[in-house]
Amino acid sequence: MFDLTNYINNKNQQINAELEKLLLGCEKAQPLVDAMRYSLMAGGKRIRPVLCLAAAEAVGGMAEDALTTGCALEMVHTYSLIHDDLPAMDDDRKRRGKPTCHIAFDEATAILAGDALLTVAFEVLSAMNFTENSTQAVQRLNVIQTIATAAGCRGMIQGQMLDIASEGHRVSREDLEGMHALKTGALIEASLQCGALLGRASKSQMEMLKTYAANIGLAFQVADDILNVEGNPQLMGKDVGTDALREKSTYPSLLGIEASKRFAWDLIQNALQAIETFDKKSEPLRAIAVYIIERKR
Amino acid sequence: MFDLTNYINNKNQQINAELEKLLLGCEKAQPLVDAMRYSLMAGGKRIRPVLCLAAAEAVGGMAEDALTTGCALEMVHTYSLIHDDLPAMDDDRKRRGKPTCHIAFDEATAILAGDALLTVAFEVLSAMNFTENSTQAVQRLNVIQTIATAAGCRGMIQGQMLDIASEGHRVSREDLEGMHALKTGALIEASLQCGALLGRASKSQMEMLKTYAANIGLAFQVADDILNVEGNPQLMGKDVGTDALREKSTYPSLLGIEASKRFAWDLIQNALQAIETFDKKSEPLRAIAVYIIERKR
Repeated sequence: MFDLTNYINNKNQQINAELEKLLLGCEKAQPLVDAMRYSLMAGGKRIRPVLCLAAAEAVGGMAEDALTTGCALEMVHTYSLIHDDLPAMDDDRKRRGKPTCHIAFDEATAILAGDALLTVAFEVLSAMNFTENSTQAVQRLNVIQTIATAAGCRGMIQGQMLDIASEGHRVSREDLEGMHALKTGALIEASLQCGALLGRASKSQMEMLKTYAANIGLAFQVADDILNVEGNPQLMGKDVGTDALREKSTYPSLLGIEASKRFAWDLIQNALQAIETFDKKSEPLRAIAVYIIERKR
Repeated sequence: MFDLTNYINNKNQQINAELEKLLLGCEKAQPLVDAMRYSLMAGGKRIRPVLCLAAAEAVGGMAEDALTTGCALEMVHTYSLIHDDLPAMDDDRKRRGKPTCHIAFDEATAILAGDALLTVAFEVLSAMNFTENSTQAVQRLNVIQTIATAAGCRGMIQGQMLDIASEGHRVSREDLEGMHALKTGALIEASLQCGALLGRASKSQMEMLKTYAANIGLAFQVADDILNVEGNPQLMGKDVGTDALREKSTYPSLLGIEASKRFAWDLIQNALQAIETFDKKSEPLRAIAVYIIERKR
């Protein structure tokens, strides 16, 4: 029986060690690097880097080859959280059980720490290793383009913009899905795509992973919405019920809680089906799909 | 006699057309792209892209090969201005004669427009053209790393952090120089370095351009400080005297206005000397060096 907890803990150790190593380059930039480290090392679930590493393995590649890219994805994700939490945006004071970056430091430092994490992500992605050949350079450029496109104005940032605009009025289920596909889905999809690229996936493997990614990406968001209704604030390290307070359109508010749970399960079934021809090395991806909607935080 | 105005106007036309083309990819992201375009097309001097193109030409390459990179540099510069102007940072309400981005739109949109410009810069830098070979891919990665390093926590962002921290108390000339080398110098140096890379500069050309860049980068800042004392607010499109109001340490406040002017001239002489062995194709770089301290805005 595959042990996901053990797998995730193991990968997280590697990811955290690599993130610490990558931050060393910023060590002189005080207090900036403190703020970057504060948010980056705040105990996130590391879903994106784990998916990236697991995708590389699932297509027959090495997780190690995707480690730096996984860390860059986590930096991009963390920058987006820091900026989303700012007073001008979601104005959140708590995340992962700790004060948000702009509360622990100040607003200017939080804005710059977010900017720096985004920039450093591209710095580490483009850092050439002299043992690499030029074919690997093409692969690296593909990875950079995949992440930049997913994070940019055709992806995550546009999703956040739509999310802010939608606050306070009811949106259709179609619009909600479109918004989440951009805000959360795009970077999750990029995580799998980059892992697959670095693991040298075939074209058909890449297509199947794309379907897997789209389904778990949306399921992840539906699960988040459900946790915001009935999650345990202690386990989650943040308040619940905040979506309702802000009159945000969510799956529970549009479909009801039971239908939302069924919808999340259907999505996970689709994800599992998409990779059913993959061999044993895709066990982590299967387990993560289920974990995504069973998680308590 | 070399006509710099004509040269700059000509290059700016190409740069503006390319920027408009690159923004088309974000067209669906309303109102985000409006805010991005508002700041990007606000009539900036385009110093960084012009330097990038001129460096490519100076080493015997083609300006066209550096055009996309020049535009990416301008996007990175514009994002930094949008974020620096935010209430939590310098709290500026006017730039280039127009309301700053967060005044014309709102704070959330301005933060996201800045984030998007930074991200799109890396998206366009990594966009592979299928006619490119893998040697060009290595070159592109070098360009991305150069820009990311210059913009990140070992460059521009650290400079902005030091700038904020220094407000309200007197800093030494050495610290002031270190701060400017990061805040303004790093991206100007990267502009020349990227142009030189794309123009296939020799190692010695690269070294000489580095000296040129360090000198004009600092001169640019000294000239900015001087303009803030005795510039014409109408021509500059922004208020003057703001540094003194904020008790910012500047070259005029440390050295006096006349010694600051002499210092700026010395720097430009050093820059010109650094590239004195370059042929006629470096005329634009020589003219830009002088323009940098003679400009009225």
